[in-house]
Amino acid sequence: MDRITSRKNAVITHLRALGAESAYRAASGEYLCDGYKLLDEARKSGAVITSVLWKEGGARSELVCDRQYSAPPELFDYASPMKNSPGPLFTVRRDEGGGDERVQSAIVLENVQDPGNVGTVLRTASAFSIDAVVLLGDCADCFSPKTVRASMGAIFRQRVLTLSHEELTAWLKKQGLKLYGAALSERATDVRKVDITHSAIAVGSEGHGLSRELLDLCDGEIIIPMDARSESLNAAVAASVLMWEMARDNT
Amino acid sequence: MDRITSRKNAVITHLRALGAESAYRAASGEYLCDGYKLLDEARKSGAVITSVLWKEGGARSELVCDRQYSAPPELFDYASPMKNSPGPLFTVRRDEGGGDERVQSAIVLENVQDPGNVGTVLRTASAFSIDAVVLLGDCADCFSPKTVRASMGAIFRQRVLTLSHEELTAWLKKQGLKLYGAALSERATDVRKVDITHSAIAVGSEGHGLSRELLDLCDGEIIIPMDARSESLNAAVAASVLMWEMARDNT
Repeated sequence: MDRITSRKNAVITHLRALGAESAYRAASGEYLCDGYKLLDEARKSGAVITSVLWKEGGARSELVCDRQYSAPPELFDYASPMKNSPGPLFTVRRDEGGGDERVQSAIVLENVQDPGNVGTVLRTASAFSIDAVVLLGDCADCFSPKTVRASMGAIFRQRVLTLSHEELTAWLKKQGLKLYGAALSERATDVRKVDITHSAIAVGSEGHGLSRELLDLCDGEIIIPMDARSESLNAAVAASVLMWEMARDNT
Repeated sequence: MDRITSRKNAVITHLRALGAESAYRAASGEYLCDGYKLLDEARKSGAVITSVLWKEGGARSELVCDRQYSAPPELFDYASPMKNSPGPLFTVRRDEGGGDERVQSAIVLENVQDPGNVGTVLRTASAFSIDAVVLLGDCADCFSPKTVRASMGAIFRQRVLTLSHEELTAWLKKQGLKLYGAALSERATDVRKVDITHSAIAVGSEGHGLSRELLDLCDGEIIIPMDARSESLNAAVAASVLMWEMARDNT
């Protein structure tokens, strides 16, 4: 195992760029994860771990890949997007295929910018066996450290597709899935009265809801009934309740 | 309206202590809120607004209470727990009665420490007309600025009780409510097979679940069925799905 001592070491600059830059993550085909819990989840899920950086003085588990390094605590903290992490940092190969695989259910997020919300949706989708999460428009990067952490390991298991509106249209057609939009409008149908077990459901940002462009693609609009004084639900909560509705009559 | 120019002004020190200290909030009987959106929600909900601090250079709305102040941006930022807030800061009288009022449904949180999760549960409880949110053990303070913000104004409408385990027992008995614990154990019953429409449901921390002490108080344990590879849901998501289950067959 190589011991790294310089901030200019190529491993350190690579990890820092993976933590900070979405475009760099996309170009390198890897993403950055942090901590023993996620490392354990990655191994159980069969994710391809490409390198590990251990923090000196912390615990280490048995060999997980060939490219392993250690760094003194100060240098480790410099490389890590987390404060006071016990380590390790590790990189995982992005798995972005799966657009052609057959799915029965999907949740579509449009312009959901909070990485905690996107990660929480991945976690719930995995728990409720939703086949695909589709990210549309200006969503948080599903491979950012915050999203990965909020997903609690679901990022290693859950099929995620990043699509344009045109690609979504083609994909839905190919899959034979209907698309329902979660909307707070009067013409939306109570979700309990619609058969959504085999479909895709779209949830928009909390501030603006779904775009006109996306609503025009929908086969119908659905609503989670709420108290009249409440304006909306948290985006991850709304998506989670809808995924539960998809799953609850299907298992 | 008084213009404040010193960090030592009693209004500024009061606002800073309200933002930072749970014990100070409890002793003063007030809590701190931030922003136009929350101010609007507070007024619509009939919350008692006790003072307002406007940021100079920002927009102001019509008179909302007698004690109004303004401060230059730098001093305002010093008083505010938010970075780069457009203002205003305002204080609201805590309303903590309601323990004797009759309720039909409650969500009980035990040791849920993340203020975002507690605020999100308040928001969902309000949306799904759950009569009471009960905080037990080491939960985030429902009156902290982060919780208030995540509640999106539900803090002004939602009945919240902070109880000990003994007080919870007495309260449930008085209300005639059954208590169900959300547990990830094999003896827990699928939530779809239990009539939870008039009951209290307890949700624990993500890391540790419900305490033995609380489980011993429960009339039964329930579980949200999940994929075998998923360990748990986000605490606010689990509570929200359970509140939806309480509401969905009841409206």
